[in-house]
Amino acid sequence: MTSDRASLIPALKNIATQLRIDSARATTQAGSGHPTSCFSMAEITSALFFSEMRFDPKNPRNPDADRFILSKGHAAPILYAAWAAAGAFDRSELLKLRELGSDLEGHPTPRLPFVDVATGSLGQGICAAIGSALNARRIKSDYRTYVLLGDGESAEGSVWEAANVAARDRLDNLCAMTDVNRLGQSQPTMWQHDMGQFERRWQAFGWNAIVIDGHDIAAILDALDKARSTKGQPTMILARTEKGKGVSFTEGKDNWHGKAFKKDELEKAVAELEQQIVPGVVTNPPAMVGKVESTPRPTASPKPIAPPNYKIGDPVATREAFGDALAKLAAADSRIVALDADVKNSTFSDRFEKVAVDRFYENFIAEQVMVGASMGLAARGAIPFPSTFACFLARAADFIRMAAIGHNNVKLVGTHAGVSIGEDGPSQMALEDLAMCRAEPNFTVLYPCDAVSAERLVALAAQANGPAYLRISRPKTPVIYQNDETFTIGGLKVLRESPGDVATVIAAGVTVFEALKACDQLKASGTAIRVIDLYSLAPVDRDGLIAAARATKGRLITVEDHYATGGVGDAVAEAVADGGFTVHRLAVREIPRSGKPEELLDRFGISSAHIVSAVNSLVGAVAAR
Amino acid sequence: MTSDRASLIPALKNIATQLRIDSARATTQAGSGHPTSCFSMAEITSALFFSEMRFDPKNPRNPDADRFILSKGHAAPILYAAWAAAGAFDRSELLKLRELGSDLEGHPTPRLPFVDVATGSLGQGICAAIGSALNARRIKSDYRTYVLLGDGESAEGSVWEAANVAARDRLDNLCAMTDVNRLGQSQPTMWQHDMGQFERRWQAFGWNAIVIDGHDIAAILDALDKARSTKGQPTMILARTEKGKGVSFTEGKDNWHGKAFKKDELEKAVAELEQQIVPGVVTNPPAMVGKVESTPRPTASPKPIAPPNYKIGDPVATREAFGDALAKLAAADSRIVALDADVKNSTFSDRFEKVAVDRFYENFIAEQVMVGASMGLAARGAIPFPSTFACFLARAADFIRMAAIGHNNVKLVGTHAGVSIGEDGPSQMALEDLAMCRAEPNFTVLYPCDAVSAERLVALAAQANGPAYLRISRPKTPVIYQNDETFTIGGLKVLRESPGDVATVIAAGVTVFEALKACDQLKASGTAIRVIDLYSLAPVDRDGLIAAARATKGRLITVEDHYATGGVGDAVAEAVADGGFTVHRLAVREIPRSGKPEELLDRFGISSAHIVSAVNSLVGAVAAR
Repeated sequence: MTSDRASLIPALKNIATQLRIDSARATTQAGSGHPTSCFSMAEITSALFFSEMRFDPKNPRNPDADRFILSKGHAAPILYAAWAAAGAFDRSELLKLRELGSDLEGHPTPRLPFVDVATGSLGQGICAAIGSALNARRIKSDYRTYVLLGDGESAEGSVWEAANVAARDRLDNLCAMTDVNRLGQSQPTMWQHDMGQFERRWQAFGWNAIVIDGHDIAAILDALDKARSTKGQPTMILARTEKGKGVSFTEGKDNWHGKAFKKDELEKAVAELEQQIVPGVVTNPPAMVGKVESTPRPTASPKPIAPPNYKIGDPVATREAFGDALAKLAAADSRIVALDADVKNSTFSDRFEKVAVDRFYENFIAEQVMVGASMGLAARGAIPFPSTFACFLARAADFIRMAAIGHNNVKLVGTHAGVSIGEDGPSQMALEDLAMCRAEPNFTVLYPCDAVSAERLVALAAQANGPAYLRISRPKTPVIYQNDETFTIGGLKVLRESPGDVATVIAAGVTVFEALKACDQLKASGTAIRVIDLYSLAPVDRDGLIAAARATKGRLITVEDHYATGGVGDAVAEAVADGGFTVHRLAVREIPRSGKPEELLDRFGISSAHIVSAVNSLVGAVAAR
Repeated sequence: MTSDRASLIPALKNIATQLRIDSARATTQAGSGHPTSCFSMAEITSALFFSEMRFDPKNPRNPDADRFILSKGHAAPILYAAWAAAGAFDRSELLKLRELGSDLEGHPTPRLPFVDVATGSLGQGICAAIGSALNARRIKSDYRTYVLLGDGESAEGSVWEAANVAARDRLDNLCAMTDVNRLGQSQPTMWQHDMGQFERRWQAFGWNAIVIDGHDIAAILDALDKARSTKGQPTMILARTEKGKGVSFTEGKDNWHGKAFKKDELEKAVAELEQQIVPGVVTNPPAMVGKVESTPRPTASPKPIAPPNYKIGDPVATREAFGDALAKLAAADSRIVALDADVKNSTFSDRFEKVAVDRFYENFIAEQVMVGASMGLAARGAIPFPSTFACFLARAADFIRMAAIGHNNVKLVGTHAGVSIGEDGPSQMALEDLAMCRAEPNFTVLYPCDAVSAERLVALAAQANGPAYLRISRPKTPVIYQNDETFTIGGLKVLRESPGDVATVIAAGVTVFEALKACDQLKASGTAIRVIDLYSLAPVDRDGLIAAARATKGRLITVEDHYATGGVGDAVAEAVADGGFTVHRLAVREIPRSGKPEELLDRFGISSAHIVSAVNSLVGAVAAR
């Protein structure tokens, strides 16, 4: 090993220098970017890609290949340079960095086959790395996951959520590294080069913490060796580095964050760097890449799941049906995994845990790592269902945003939506979750009202490709659909209709039952209305809604247990706008408070009485409440 | 002291027991709640309220009073019981817990005068406590801030963001406590009663960590003494407790989280508790409350700020104008404070730091604690402007949700909104920030397009009461408003109009300039359009929009550098719906990518060319791009 290393180290050193040169050239050509953030991690990158990792540059998604996640995504140019050096694509492409026509974006996204999750929002990569490491266990592969963080990034709370979960799950197939280059964007980081600050924290959180000089290739290789041989514990390699390393006018200097070199600066920098090339060492980086030993494994062949088995009229909470559906999926498809944040007995995800404990990941009260790990799991072929109270998914809003950017196949489930949770009060009520998920252009958003639709929509979400959100309610609601009823993503159900309908009421979730009650009351007084269950909010059935509008004199009323913005009303309004129709919206329009569910539905304007009143007022009749 | 304590301890013990009884009765009466989570913290509460803290039960908002924030908000009943015992209100009110007519909600909200911030979403109270502690420095008061966390809550990353910031800021006027009762909602916590796990973490993060038996009143008082005398460091008291303490069938028992006692269980529990009352000890809790020594201080009298000083046509980024406005406010109003997350040189909040460094709080890359601390600052009379890239405010979405619930006077500023940031790519582009903030029913949402409007809107936001969001752009845009132009929250500006306008284009921020360009191009081909700068998105000028629609044949086109949902288009659509008008929307409808700003505006459908095309197509002319 020692003699091997004697020849390896100068080669890795030269590759590191070349990666610096490539990063500098690419950012100058782009006119923007973060060359100095690349320079600090050049030796780490070189050691990882050309000595440590086993991967296939031509097939980066090989399921048994080691993973590298660049959590400090702003150092994208060196990531691209490393993959180019490994032979994944031609180095000349590097000069298209940040161009509209190139997938070499300013920060990495999975448009590139060697990127698992989009990074660039700090503190997320380490969460995704946990998902990647958990997936290795799921598929019984010995691939390892590497993730590189910035030091400034370590201030993000999500990093410490990840630290807890990885240690608790004993993820010894996970090796994290921190590029402690001392300088943040606007000033030195909180701990600068005080390596003990990092070491104490990671040790306290249960990690194998190793402090090294991050420009010393032998030290990097030793630390990676130690990480690989450490059992029962994830490793954090804390690498003391210099931002801008290798170029005299940037090394350790302030005010170089996120600045590309000007042309003349580039020439100077490259000249300095080229002088650092160890003479007489010929490198062939692609030949240095460690080979993957692939395990043949059967392709996933999900079995059909048993249909729902409910009785019309029985009161069943959609959250309970969600738990049952998830448990059925566990048996039918080994790719399905579930993640919790200590509410599994309320969301009923514990029903999955009971039947598939090895694919159930408890994150305790830490929603960011729950969603972030899901992103990593999804990137490696699992179909994760992270679930918690819908309001607490807001804790992971930025992860959801990044999951959308990465088109990660994550199935978010938020239970206890809306004021219908009752007494716990507004802090536990999600009233902006639809706004959050509908905003993302590629999210599927589903909202079942009864147990049958809940089971069916959970199964549909599992089958669909890409991010999805299921909005689930707390209260028991009567089963209204037959067990063999079919649902489609982008569909709706017309629950009541007659030729004389004077208006259409569009509801979803708990308000479906308010709409049905209102329909009955109105019918008793001689007014017929159409009632729609808009269980698919993204995509939405534009044609179905416009047809209903046309059939009911253009009168559309939406009613939702959500704030007035971003939910059912907005979804319908945009869908029917081209048809020239407008929408009258009933929604929660103020901060709610504690009370009984039915009291709150009425107090906040979304009960059957409000629907009756809205219909009467819209058809010009005297509102009679 | 020792002899004082000899009589004090049995009194505090009896009060603790009474608080348990009150919590049990209230939750049983309500039919829901978390009595066992109250039981574990009864001694801590008793010691805090009736020995440690100096406050005024009749005037809880006294600026010099010590603060107590219940971060584990689900234990609200014991918080209410303590304030009632202190004399803030009649104890009989406790039995109205969770009723629609009572402000004693399931989780605490600032509807109650003794609650600074809404809690119930875990991990937020400690962030708010930092704001409260910073405010004591701002107003030069020696009040102390106490905050109680749950042990399960300690898994939230925001707790560790707070841990870093409080230690770095040497907040020795902050005393946190953790109620380590071992049991989470669905299972035991990650570390259960392994107190070393907690101690190691808090020490590593730079806190004075003290482990005690949380049911031993003498130990609690000693720890509080130590906290008070510790200089230069915040204290974390780690209290080992039993969930359900004091009642044999709940103490340390599983499956009691969030469950009120049934009537018969209550009787048993109360009987057991009453037996624990130390005989012969007469307590008079209100008389035990420590008095506040109030410092007379002048009421805030903000001075007017100098008007903007720009030249029409000059290119100035709104972010730069924001920084300048904030710096002006610093001098005009001592209540204004600014918070950053290591992007101050990009947001230009560093201009505030330069003139008011003592009111500038650096959080490094930790957006949750930045917003959470702002909530605490606002609750104590400061007017905080936390700012970062708009996309990273999503990191604090759940804090924003809770700020809305608490109606905290926080002025969020998000810069670098939209695809117009260009090359950095989607991870740095906020395209759902308007959806996030507009969803909250009580948020003011403002979006300036030029430097003059930016300065004016920053000042208006400072004056307005309640939460606000300012959306700010990266690129330089030409000044279009005169320095004396006036703006109002809920207003808009008609920038182009003529009697023959065939459509209205409603823009905001960077798209205002695309709309103006489109207007010029259309004019050249003989088509007149109205152009509106919708700088106030919440509230929105319904009448102004409807008037424009009426004047331009009902043709409304919105164009926004935001996803199609939750932003300008939805805001306008709802505003004009009652007038029978629909809206044609131009917005970003797919995940964007890196490129030059102007290329991206065009690629994603929001450039002047797209506006021209939309107008032409709407008026039935041949679209000519």
